[in-house]
Amino acid sequence: MPRNRRIVLASRPAGKATVENFRLDTVDTPVLAQGQVLVRNHWLSLDPYMRGRMEESRSYAAPQALNETMQGQTTGVVIESRNPAWPVGTSVLGTFGWQEYGLSDGSGLRKLDTRAIPLSSYLGAVGMPGVTAWYGLNRIIQPRAGETVAVSAASGAVGMIVGQLAKRAGARAVGIAGGAQKCRFVVQELGMDACVDYKSGDPGAQLKEACPNGIDGYFENVGGAVLDAVLPRMNASGRIALCGLIAGYNGAPIPISNPRWLLISRLKLQGFIISEHLDLWPQALEELGAGVASGAIRYRESVVQGLENAPGAFLGMLEGRNFGKQLVKLVD
Amino acid sequence: MPRNRRIVLASRPAGKATVENFRLDTVDTPVLAQGQVLVRNHWLSLDPYMRGRMEESRSYAAPQALNETMQGQTTGVVIESRNPAWPVGTSVLGTFGWQEYGLSDGSGLRKLDTRAIPLSSYLGAVGMPGVTAWYGLNRIIQPRAGETVAVSAASGAVGMIVGQLAKRAGARAVGIAGGAQKCRFVVQELGMDACVDYKSGDPGAQLKEACPNGIDGYFENVGGAVLDAVLPRMNASGRIALCGLIAGYNGAPIPISNPRWLLISRLKLQGFIISEHLDLWPQALEELGAGVASGAIRYRESVVQGLENAPGAFLGMLEGRNFGKQLVKLVD
Repeated sequence: MPRNRRIVLASRPAGKATVENFRLDTVDTPVLAQGQVLVRNHWLSLDPYMRGRMEESRSYAAPQALNETMQGQTTGVVIESRNPAWPVGTSVLGTFGWQEYGLSDGSGLRKLDTRAIPLSSYLGAVGMPGVTAWYGLNRIIQPRAGETVAVSAASGAVGMIVGQLAKRAGARAVGIAGGAQKCRFVVQELGMDACVDYKSGDPGAQLKEACPNGIDGYFENVGGAVLDAVLPRMNASGRIALCGLIAGYNGAPIPISNPRWLLISRLKLQGFIISEHLDLWPQALEELGAGVASGAIRYRESVVQGLENAPGAFLGMLEGRNFGKQLVKLVD
Repeated sequence: MPRNRRIVLASRPAGKATVENFRLDTVDTPVLAQGQVLVRNHWLSLDPYMRGRMEESRSYAAPQALNETMQGQTTGVVIESRNPAWPVGTSVLGTFGWQEYGLSDGSGLRKLDTRAIPLSSYLGAVGMPGVTAWYGLNRIIQPRAGETVAVSAASGAVGMIVGQLAKRAGARAVGIAGGAQKCRFVVQELGMDACVDYKSGDPGAQLKEACPNGIDGYFENVGGAVLDAVLPRMNASGRIALCGLIAGYNGAPIPISNPRWLLISRLKLQGFIISEHLDLWPQALEELGAGVASGAIRYRESVVQGLENAPGAFLGMLEGRNFGKQLVKLVD
């Protein structure tokens, strides 16, 4: 009966979240009842939406309870089983949260085929972030060939996929990212047509140069100054998929300075939460899985080793210090 | 050959528009060529969108040229004709702008039936403002029975119609207007269920009381503090038709303070310009015309007498001093 380490929410942030908001606990893993399985989590996904759940206030997700294991998705392998449908050795996707082991009767688990798709990527390109990209691009932006699609946090878990799917749709894809290294990756590795480094010089002027025909679709993960720079560059009847506003997750004000552009350019802006569109996940995952398996869809991961490093990695991600999909590796 | 008085754009506003930006000219009306008609304009429509055209900067409409007649819609009667399709006495809708007479070969004119619908209302409830209300409500907000629809500038040319069409669709209609007199009119004359006076007390608290089940659809004519007060009250998957932002037309900043609500509540916000949806005008005008002819759709007009008073009335409308559709009566 192994000991299970887990991270709980110790306190709610007052403004900026800190490592003091988290606490590492050690508890026994339980003895399995009939029908139950014990999963060794190999990978923990860190996602910006988790910051919203740390708050008590109204958000789209129920708040994370205090002194409970931080919620989140994991992938791992069944190591003990009293359920014949889930034999030892089965690779699974679960929502076990920030801990090394998970107990389940099989409900909420999904079997994973890791022959051509790595276990970690079911938390990224072939998981929730990938489906988020797929939905916002295909169902809200709906790019036509020859149009220009821009995406912020373009080297992040969602943005990476948005840009590549936009290219597949025949659009010009322009990333927005923080730093020359991320921008190089966006263009050279992901194949986007251009990338604006919002940390270097005037993003509005850079966007104008990178999008000579304006922007028809914009996938927003950031908000604030980045959104302000994009709005004047949007073409008439442009579409904005509002997926995240990470610039404001630590309490900074992120007003839309000039909403006139929404009117002048007759823009459609639509917020969405991917968990409300479960009917589309199978279709999206099939396309994403095939793309990853064949190598046509590329991605990058930012991995920290060990559960104890999850809080620091999470806080770093909120400030853009990650580079690609942020993961915690829970096994050596 | 009567003398024609007209108002031209004398200069572009620097910030707030003033009467000095306009100039009254007197010119000869021309001798008619074969095929032409001379129209005596009876009514001139004053509309907020005209403020945007006074600017040189990019807007959805081409800028109004300096020293040219201010553009705008008019209704009037043919008083001289060398075109058998448009005999003397024909009532017409035209876009002759801010002047007492208009010359046309018939193109751009529409014949009006004034037996049951007054000439003036073709510039309001049965004209562009009415169709604007119809489109934003029916094509963007798409209210379902039992939902709550809110509308700002609720006693204005567009807002009046939005509220009444929302009621027809089975929704709860809540107006937002400036002042107790306008709010009384919105509830007692137009039949909306409640009205929030944004000039009296905290609009957010009033909205909460007026919309106990939240807001599902919002028709925005104003922006700024009004939009900020509405956003937290929007229900999940709410729709916002962005028609106007009059609070900012004189240059005041009108940021959206907290765009997180767009994400948290998965809102769809869509800007639109009614001139881009000409295919729907016949359907909308038929419904609006029938409603006005039967008395089922009500409206109020704010009339000033004489072309020379058009600039003052226009500037007053931008500050909400009008009460109902703002018109200039050009005949005694």
